[in-house]
Amino acid sequence: MGFSFRVEDGFFAGYQKLVREDVIPYQKKVLGDELEGVEKSHAIENFKIAAKEREGEFYGMVFQDSDVAKWIEAASYSLQVQYDEKLDQELDELIALIGRAQEPDGYLDTYFTVKEPEHKWQNLCEAHELYCAGHMMEAAAAHFQATGKTTLLDIMKKNADHICSIFGEGKKRGYPGHPEAELALMRLFAVTGEEKYKDMAAFFIRERGAEPNYFVEELKNRDWCVWSRNPINTAYHQCHKPVTEQEEAVGHAVRAVYLYSGMADVARQEKDEKLKTACKRLWNNITQKQMYITGGIGSTVLGEAFTKDYDLPNDTAYAETCASVGLIFFAKRMLMMEKNGNYGDVMERALYNCVLAGMSLDGKKFFYVNPLQVKPGYSGELVTHKHDLPDRPAWFGCACCPPNVARLLMSLSDYIWEEVEDGGETTLYAHLFVGGVYQSEGIKIKTETAYPAEGEIRYLVEEAEKKVKLAIRIPAWSLQTVMAINGKEEPLQVRDGYAYLSGELKAGDRIVLKLDMTPRKVYANLNISEDAGKTALQKGPLVYCFEGVDNGGDLDVLRADRESEITEIVKDDSVLGKVNALQISGKKLEGSAELYSFDRPKETPFTLTAVPYYMWDNRGLNAMKVWIEERG
Amino acid sequence: MGFSFRVEDGFFAGYQKLVREDVIPYQKKVLGDELEGVEKSHAIENFKIAAKEREGEFYGMVFQDSDVAKWIEAASYSLQVQYDEKLDQELDELIALIGRAQEPDGYLDTYFTVKEPEHKWQNLCEAHELYCAGHMMEAAAAHFQATGKTTLLDIMKKNADHICSIFGEGKKRGYPGHPEAELALMRLFAVTGEEKYKDMAAFFIRERGAEPNYFVEELKNRDWCVWSRNPINTAYHQCHKPVTEQEEAVGHAVRAVYLYSGMADVARQEKDEKLKTACKRLWNNITQKQMYITGGIGSTVLGEAFTKDYDLPNDTAYAETCASVGLIFFAKRMLMMEKNGNYGDVMERALYNCVLAGMSLDGKKFFYVNPLQVKPGYSGELVTHKHDLPDRPAWFGCACCPPNVARLLMSLSDYIWEEVEDGGETTLYAHLFVGGVYQSEGIKIKTETAYPAEGEIRYLVEEAEKKVKLAIRIPAWSLQTVMAINGKEEPLQVRDGYAYLSGELKAGDRIVLKLDMTPRKVYANLNISEDAGKTALQKGPLVYCFEGVDNGGDLDVLRADRESEITEIVKDDSVLGKVNALQISGKKLEGSAELYSFDRPKETPFTLTAVPYYMWDNRGLNAMKVWIEERG
Repeated sequence: MGFSFRVEDGFFAGYQKLVREDVIPYQKKVLGDELEGVEKSHAIENFKIAAKEREGEFYGMVFQDSDVAKWIEAASYSLQVQYDEKLDQELDELIALIGRAQEPDGYLDTYFTVKEPEHKWQNLCEAHELYCAGHMMEAAAAHFQATGKTTLLDIMKKNADHICSIFGEGKKRGYPGHPEAELALMRLFAVTGEEKYKDMAAFFIRERGAEPNYFVEELKNRDWCVWSRNPINTAYHQCHKPVTEQEEAVGHAVRAVYLYSGMADVARQEKDEKLKTACKRLWNNITQKQMYITGGIGSTVLGEAFTKDYDLPNDTAYAETCASVGLIFFAKRMLMMEKNGNYGDVMERALYNCVLAGMSLDGKKFFYVNPLQVKPGYSGELVTHKHDLPDRPAWFGCACCPPNVARLLMSLSDYIWEEVEDGGETTLYAHLFVGGVYQSEGIKIKTETAYPAEGEIRYLVEEAEKKVKLAIRIPAWSLQTVMAINGKEEPLQVRDGYAYLSGELKAGDRIVLKLDMTPRKVYANLNISEDAGKTALQKGPLVYCFEGVDNGGDLDVLRADRESEITEIVKDDSVLGKVNALQISGKKLEGSAELYSFDRPKETPFTLTAVPYYMWDNRGLNAMKVWIEERG
Repeated sequence: MGFSFRVEDGFFAGYQKLVREDVIPYQKKVLGDELEGVEKSHAIENFKIAAKEREGEFYGMVFQDSDVAKWIEAASYSLQVQYDEKLDQELDELIALIGRAQEPDGYLDTYFTVKEPEHKWQNLCEAHELYCAGHMMEAAAAHFQATGKTTLLDIMKKNADHICSIFGEGKKRGYPGHPEAELALMRLFAVTGEEKYKDMAAFFIRERGAEPNYFVEELKNRDWCVWSRNPINTAYHQCHKPVTEQEEAVGHAVRAVYLYSGMADVARQEKDEKLKTACKRLWNNITQKQMYITGGIGSTVLGEAFTKDYDLPNDTAYAETCASVGLIFFAKRMLMMEKNGNYGDVMERALYNCVLAGMSLDGKKFFYVNPLQVKPGYSGELVTHKHDLPDRPAWFGCACCPPNVARLLMSLSDYIWEEVEDGGETTLYAHLFVGGVYQSEGIKIKTETAYPAEGEIRYLVEEAEKKVKLAIRIPAWSLQTVMAINGKEEPLQVRDGYAYLSGELKAGDRIVLKLDMTPRKVYANLNISEDAGKTALQKGPLVYCFEGVDNGGDLDVLRADRESEITEIVKDDSVLGKVNALQISGKKLEGSAELYSFDRPKETPFTLTAVPYYMWDNRGLNAMKVWIEERG
């Protein structure tokens, strides 16, 4: 990217510290089976066995290797955020082990090397070989960018070369069962400039959904399976039709957004308008029809999947943390292709709500599933609500979401800023509002802000030795935005959601943006059955929620007054700290003990209190609701 | 029972005609594979093969025989309602075939006779042998009572004797996987007076849930299965603990209420207070914590089961028609043990709402699952809502619910009236309000009523040659009930929900009961998350619902005014006929096309129209809701 950004604010700097000091070391211990009482990972052990340095059997999921890859990626970003010699060495040792586990032809997957060497590349649908390779390619790119070392990059170039030798026109058809290699090969291409990696990614994407269906044919030709010999659900795998013909986001949500991210990369690099159109269509379908207000996507546990437009149940939601991380990947790639504030708005929505809610404030517990409504005794317990835990579980040994959150938070700079060269002109895009110091050749800008607690963001230009213009995303939720340049209010020139500053930046420039942080009631499209007639509260990028602890326990008996104004209070909570809470007037119902009765429940005035959704479930098991019904 | 009651009213007489003329002949053809385009039943063919009159393989479910049994039972009641020589002969022929299919020792189950003779009685948990036997015993009792013929009764006595020779103290332990034999043996006992049948039923009930668990042990001892070798879910089978220790209704709802019905029979006959207490506890749990307003029970499709107290989702409801039929069986047996209007109230609720809704008004289509809310395009289509069809499917070849509805409607008299002799005094109980002619030795009473359209019921005593008192259930929903005897208003003497008339009946007596048919808003217990803050409409025994066709299509945008009065109108509908519809004032919301917006939906006044729930889905595919949110 050619720039660096050091996060220095009261919000994300704390998260990065948590990930650096707690999450990453903890997960390393998990991977190395060093923790008592935590389910065995065996992930590093698998590499040792593959390297023939240990006797033993492969243990774990078919995609166990990817846990190691995601950790390396997160740890590499961590080094970039703050160098740590011990971590650097740990990485070196682990990478050396991976090198020794790689087969002479470049093949790298401990499941198959150790357990089923005769079955390589025979079950792309289930076996996650390309998925694991993809994650390790991402790790390699991150490690190279963070350290300048080519150790892992060399391993993964060799692996990618091997993959290129197996797949392609006139070679093996096929594509990943779980997309990931596509976007990873594009990262490898970005880092190495090797066209063949881009071509390989493009092949996988263009081959997907072609007839006869590869996975259907593959199933006929193999006599083994990882999980199931049932007929292939092609929509689950997003290979029900060619990707350029897909109208709606379907199937497993994480797979979907990983695939669309790869598609966006290829569309951008190859200037493929048809593919770009498909990306936009799928983006629009997700964000205009299938996304929770929290930025959660994939509303059903059954297949962890998209369902139908406007089917967004709150209490049986799936809304996997990883799917929102993937939505952010997709958003970033769409932004790289096309500067439109909508991508940034969605990126921000997913980040500040669903993704951050995925982790407890102390970084020790994680949600995989992010419901918008829970009721203790029912959520997590009913056979239909088993997946919707009302309380974050302690970390699982083998895990997708925690390392995904870790790698996102540690590489956040890449989502905040983008420097675009076009026709000799450089534009610096500020996609997200995070305090810190931006630096690239000849440019240094300091951002100061208490965002998202406050809406003022100050950009202080410390160096501007090259010609560069600034463009800042103006979120759609900011109905009244004010900008002052060097103390003088300037009219906003907003195009597609970005305010483009007219002049070039000069050292000493001070740009002050004031976003409209008025808390507001949000209303859902009435096609969303579960939210029709209800309201949710939002302030800036933060969606709020009502928790039992602040509202007398039971939320089902509460209603919001239709005409109520929102009052903002600063709540000083022993766990949450000083938090901007929102209050609205409402009613509390008190009803009969009968199952059914002719007696209308009594209504008494009640003040409802909401806290930011990302903070929920940090104060013990209790009820939670984002959407609350309005009464007259 | 010693009495007869000929249904003669504008409501149930029509249903009985439909069942007699359409449903019973149609199902006979299904059982005999005489219909093109209907899934093969093979049920009669299985008996022919078992009788060695045909070559062939068993085909169908392990409980396929029970389809034949339920048909015989319904057809027998039909003969009792109206004699039909052809049907009588058809029954004779079918019963003769069954006799020839029976093995010499009395064993009767074509699945095992034809397919797995070596596996008899080895898999009580799954194999439905006792279930099929039970249904055929019920058929035998019904056939004997309807015709006086002992043909099927003799077959089933021989079968019951065989069962008694296999199971019991010092013999084989065990009990039915799907309860049914318990209540059926009690019917056989009632008809024959054979104590051993009662003892056998009591054994099955007392053995259930004893340790070591029979099904768990059985699984260890067999190397075959019908469906699954998974560990036994004892709660699903209601054998997680002895029945007298069970506190809550759990597991498969139909199995549960069939079991509880058998328990009530045994408790009554053996005057077993502990068992009676268990029955009451389970009854109270179901009807006070786990029952839909429609009388539907078993709220989840997963296991067709009870879940937790107050978990009564409307749009993912299971509420199987058969479970409500079983609840009526249970209610009737509780009433036989203890005269309390609550049992009658629940019986009436289930009958007029969930059960009748199970069948289309033309008798041609049936619901197995009875949701309280549907939305076309979602219900029946979403992976989480596949079971909640918004439109009744055409009849399945092999089916539980249609014949269960048929046998209930054709034997309705047994639920309407009960004659109790106690200490030389006879009391005649009127549990339900149905027009027709009651006759027993020395007594003839004519009931005239337009119930449930109207609340007036006239009892005209035509003969009263023996001393008999009358007791009439006064439904809890009738807040203002008036009774006049021979033109003179009499104060009601209500005890436990029954009005006991002081004097003995005399020929010429004319008792006029006026129930309070004021339509009312009903409110659910606020612990029911899905209904809190909502209202439903009820008039007499009828729960109402809002259908899209009467309310502009989309119901999610409608709200009821909290203070609105209910207006009653007579709607003349081309399909429903003249129907008492209910109207309330409310609001219609009109919102933004955005997925989420700060714009509050506009509200415009709207009059909501409701029709009886049992009539829903007779006017084409459309949305439906029983519960509607109130606005101030």
